[in-house]
Amino acid sequence: MPFCVTRKDILRAAEYLQPHIHRTPIHTSRTLDSLCGSRLFLKCENLQRIGAFKIRGATYAIGQLSEELARCGVVTQSSGNHGQAVALAAQERNISAHIVMPSNASRVKREAVKSYGGQVVECEPTLAAREAAAEQLLKAHQATYIHPYDNVHVIAGQGTTGIEVMEQVSHLDAIVTPVGGGGLLSGVCIAASESTIKVYGAEPKGADDAYQSYQSGLWQPQDNPQTVADGLLTSLGQTNWPIIRQLCAGIFTVTEEQIIEAMRFVWERMKLLIEPSSAVAVAVVSTPEFKALGHKRVCVVVTGGNVDLDKIPWV
Amino acid sequence: MPFCVTRKDILRAAEYLQPHIHRTPIHTSRTLDSLCGSRLFLKCENLQRIGAFKIRGATYAIGQLSEELARCGVVTQSSGNHGQAVALAAQERNISAHIVMPSNASRVKREAVKSYGGQVVECEPTLAAREAAAEQLLKAHQATYIHPYDNVHVIAGQGTTGIEVMEQVSHLDAIVTPVGGGGLLSGVCIAASESTIKVYGAEPKGADDAYQSYQSGLWQPQDNPQTVADGLLTSLGQTNWPIIRQLCAGIFTVTEEQIIEAMRFVWERMKLLIEPSSAVAVAVVSTPEFKALGHKRVCVVVTGGNVDLDKIPWV
Repeated sequence: MPFCVTRKDILRAAEYLQPHIHRTPIHTSRTLDSLCGSRLFLKCENLQRIGAFKIRGATYAIGQLSEELARCGVVTQSSGNHGQAVALAAQERNISAHIVMPSNASRVKREAVKSYGGQVVECEPTLAAREAAAEQLLKAHQATYIHPYDNVHVIAGQGTTGIEVMEQVSHLDAIVTPVGGGGLLSGVCIAASESTIKVYGAEPKGADDAYQSYQSGLWQPQDNPQTVADGLLTSLGQTNWPIIRQLCAGIFTVTEEQIIEAMRFVWERMKLLIEPSSAVAVAVVSTPEFKALGHKRVCVVVTGGNVDLDKIPWV
Repeated sequence: MPFCVTRKDILRAAEYLQPHIHRTPIHTSRTLDSLCGSRLFLKCENLQRIGAFKIRGATYAIGQLSEELARCGVVTQSSGNHGQAVALAAQERNISAHIVMPSNASRVKREAVKSYGGQVVECEPTLAAREAAAEQLLKAHQATYIHPYDNVHVIAGQGTTGIEVMEQVSHLDAIVTPVGGGGLLSGVCIAASESTIKVYGAEPKGADDAYQSYQSGLWQPQDNPQTVADGLLTSLGQTNWPIIRQLCAGIFTVTEEQIIEAMRFVWERMKLLIEPSSAVAVAVVSTPEFKALGHKRVCVVVTGGNVDLDKIPWV
């Protein structure tokens, strides 16, 4: 069965995005290599605009709107990187963006969305309240909803990370990305689908719906997830799941301790600020289970660096 | 009067160092640019080997030792980046390095020196005890002392930072470096001495011996320095001072609050871990006094990223 997003769509997205985003660098560390027993390449999307890969999907999805649709603006709900990404992408297209955020979202995150010209709409911190608020905005403005991952243009946009990685690093054996809703993982799976590169997902044990779904072959939404990796609390999207089920080579999980240790390692030894969600993928490549696969050249997608510096997990 | 280090010496050092060190990248930030009213280029020596520019001077100085001298090993005293640099440079030349460290130096710093093969020699945390310990080691091993800044080869090595910056960024108007002992600042001053680029020093108000010396024209050692920028507690070296007095375009000072604010800004917005000493130079370029100079393209040398992650100044 063909997927709703093709490799050609991702190549088209890559071309579209080129003037809008950074081509983020690859960083390496000999110490990390020796810990993992392979040559590791960190794709630094923490150095991307808004500090995370999410700008890719948001920019492409908003770029694909017709003039008529675009004029009515966009809406999303996110207390994280996707909210900032939609705000900035809308600002660059000169259209309005309403970002629904729970009233308990941190001041830092609200300010970040506002700094990119987004209009923050506060609601009670419940799923029902968030959806009601978004629904109301969509009706009031005839605006378009930009889903953080369950959206074909978002998948194509995030998948451009995979295209770039393959251009930047030769002879890769594997790519590992964190998986929350699965926008990035499904996009990278498709991007690498005509190569011999294996693509893996990395997940916290405390939010392992992708792992459970993958193992059982049945889509299983998240049940009361608990993890420091706040970008990975969401459940796998319905559009993303079939792509991941078929193309992903495996999902690995790690504990909270492993996540925090990996995060601290990258800060300390590589001088790069990465957020806990990104550390999940770094942690995976140093597990005995992953090492046992024997991959020699592995790319880890460091998805973002938006950390609340007043709440560092080990302090 | 000609200086003890020439631009040719620095070019020779650059050639020597090329296979031993990283050519560190330049990072930029639109937000930082707009705060400073100029185009800023951060030379990321925090991404250098051992996490600081100090590897340049140590590697060059150790590389210049004759076979006979080298065989007896090297000695230095440092609880900071220079100790790690000497340890690694000695390891790469396959000779022994004794690093005298005060007994109250952090475990992290002792471990770092050991991880590069250095032999840590502990002493009481007084200047007299440190010098006695170093003296004894020098005699016992007939070893060579590698001074952190008051050494012509160290100055030439650190100056290569300036050569690289000029190759990486075109049409620079100014380069700003932190100043402690003055190895980096004096080296960069000489590196830029045949160009129109102005070189400035950046210092904490709580450790402003370079500023006081520069203003009065008389070398004045540090008097009870107090600053979060622990790399800048040392007094200006005797070899470094005449170079700085004659070639440096000015020294600017900043408060502890400005240093911490700049450090946090670079962590938060640029996702780069920089140490407080480096933040001093970032803080300087956003002061009204520096902005008043009207420089359009300014390079800030981010000297290092070795921060104790259990003691973050704002936490």
